[in-house]
Amino acid sequence: MTATKITHRQILQYRGDQCETRPDLIAVEAPLEIRIAWGPAFARKEKTWLMTLRTPGADEELIWGLLLSEGIIREKKEVLQLEPCVKAKGDTYVVELDPAVQVDWENMGRQGLMTGACGLCGKELIESSLEGCQVSPPTDLKLWPEQLFSLAGQMAQLQAGFKHTGGLHAAALFDREGQICLLREDIGRHNAMDKLIGAAWQRELLPLSEYLVCWSSRASFELVQKALRAGLPLAVAMSAPSSLAIELAEAAQLSLIGFLREDRFNLYTDTRDLIHASTPIQA
Amino acid sequence: MTATKITHRQILQYRGDQCETRPDLIAVEAPLEIRIAWGPAFARKEKTWLMTLRTPGADEELIWGLLLSEGIIREKKEVLQLEPCVKAKGDTYVVELDPAVQVDWENMGRQGLMTGACGLCGKELIESSLEGCQVSPPTDLKLWPEQLFSLAGQMAQLQAGFKHTGGLHAAALFDREGQICLLREDIGRHNAMDKLIGAAWQRELLPLSEYLVCWSSRASFELVQKALRAGLPLAVAMSAPSSLAIELAEAAQLSLIGFLREDRFNLYTDTRDLIHASTPIQA
Repeated sequence: MTATKITHRQILQYRGDQCETRPDLIAVEAPLEIRIAWGPAFARKEKTWLMTLRTPGADEELIWGLLLSEGIIREKKEVLQLEPCVKAKGDTYVVELDPAVQVDWENMGRQGLMTGACGLCGKELIESSLEGCQVSPPTDLKLWPEQLFSLAGQMAQLQAGFKHTGGLHAAALFDREGQICLLREDIGRHNAMDKLIGAAWQRELLPLSEYLVCWSSRASFELVQKALRAGLPLAVAMSAPSSLAIELAEAAQLSLIGFLREDRFNLYTDTRDLIHASTPIQA
Repeated sequence: MTATKITHRQILQYRGDQCETRPDLIAVEAPLEIRIAWGPAFARKEKTWLMTLRTPGADEELIWGLLLSEGIIREKKEVLQLEPCVKAKGDTYVVELDPAVQVDWENMGRQGLMTGACGLCGKELIESSLEGCQVSPPTDLKLWPEQLFSLAGQMAQLQAGFKHTGGLHAAALFDREGQICLLREDIGRHNAMDKLIGAAWQRELLPLSEYLVCWSSRASFELVQKALRAGLPLAVAMSAPSSLAIELAEAAQLSLIGFLREDRFNLYTDTRDLIHASTPIQA
């Protein structure tokens, strides 16, 4: 079991017309599988209940909290044992329930990642998702830092729901000139992205190899995965990317930007040089 | 099908030592059920694939995007029909797949709310969750606005991961004096809350009827539901609450605060008067 909450990485930080390489700290996102064992001794069952992406650390607390908040148990004594599965390759726990606990498997709230595979570590999760969505198709996309600085301002003009409530995320599609084409809002950042991709698909724009996406939020593994499935070569987040988002982007040759502001951003991976270089800052 | 993205509500806004009633706009969060029909004519199957909470509007785009990003289909022609289910009470769509599409139901990434019930509207979802977690137990909790203004500052001192990465959410538990007891961080705000509840449970603190929780994030329906299951009477969010979060809080007599800052906050519901009154602002 790993419990690394923060990881290190070299990034390229753009500020105005200059850029520099610098070390950065990234929040770790990694898969956790929770298996449940239940039923009387003569008919014991064990199944994967949840595959979730979380920051490692306090895993047992997370599982106790989930068991309560998802209504699986009401008292601690209903769990006979909660322990790491030593056979699994990734971070996996098995929760053994008291045989008296009724488990309605069909109607249990279950959460699943977009892979059917279980017990994966982050690296295997990336490999498994790349099977489902190839690396980004070839692209002629190439943007100047100034074009990227303008994305948030363009989005703000269309974020009517956020302007009124402060409670909605947005995902927006931009063309190769950095001009906004489509924007969708939702209380969930993943929903906003799905709405955007669905809207682009209905307009026959897929694969989106000559477009880029910008999110009002942080960049998660799942958001990068959605970008890849739609054929996007470049994704921009206004806030932090997770470790797994960066790793998937790098493996799939999707360029990833985070912490976008009016005059700066961080470039986490850009293996195909989609961003024009700025003047390096002299040390 | 409703498509209301924003709803209106009267709130109590505290600023310094004064407060006033004022109208507010709230982002709508409401359940959407997506059913999938698949298989050859002689063995047709139809099942609920997803129950998600989203902001109404662009529902068909959301579904098209989900079908692609979850890897259910790769081409639009694989969907024969996508239409609202007129029989369902809540917002429900049925996606009819081409019989040639292979559906691996067991391994499909599925997302479920914490209820087994399907096709619910928001009101029914609230009723269904109240069955699983009673209204908050009796409490003697009563806080002054000044105590609440201090919560974020207390949390910041313990948010080591956020300080370094800008990419982690936090959930923290405070006692009846407004002093911080526990804090947990995670890349997911729901995970941070589950870790916090699990940690409190391990310390034999449940039910948390003499405590309050504060989230670094917005307040969703699911976060309020987790607070209820742990017996919390008061929840505070640093950002916006959703419509459904407020409605559930109100139905369960949980007091809910949003947009917490150093000198102000919005009080969305407080049926048990857990917050001391400030001087009303004279119009």
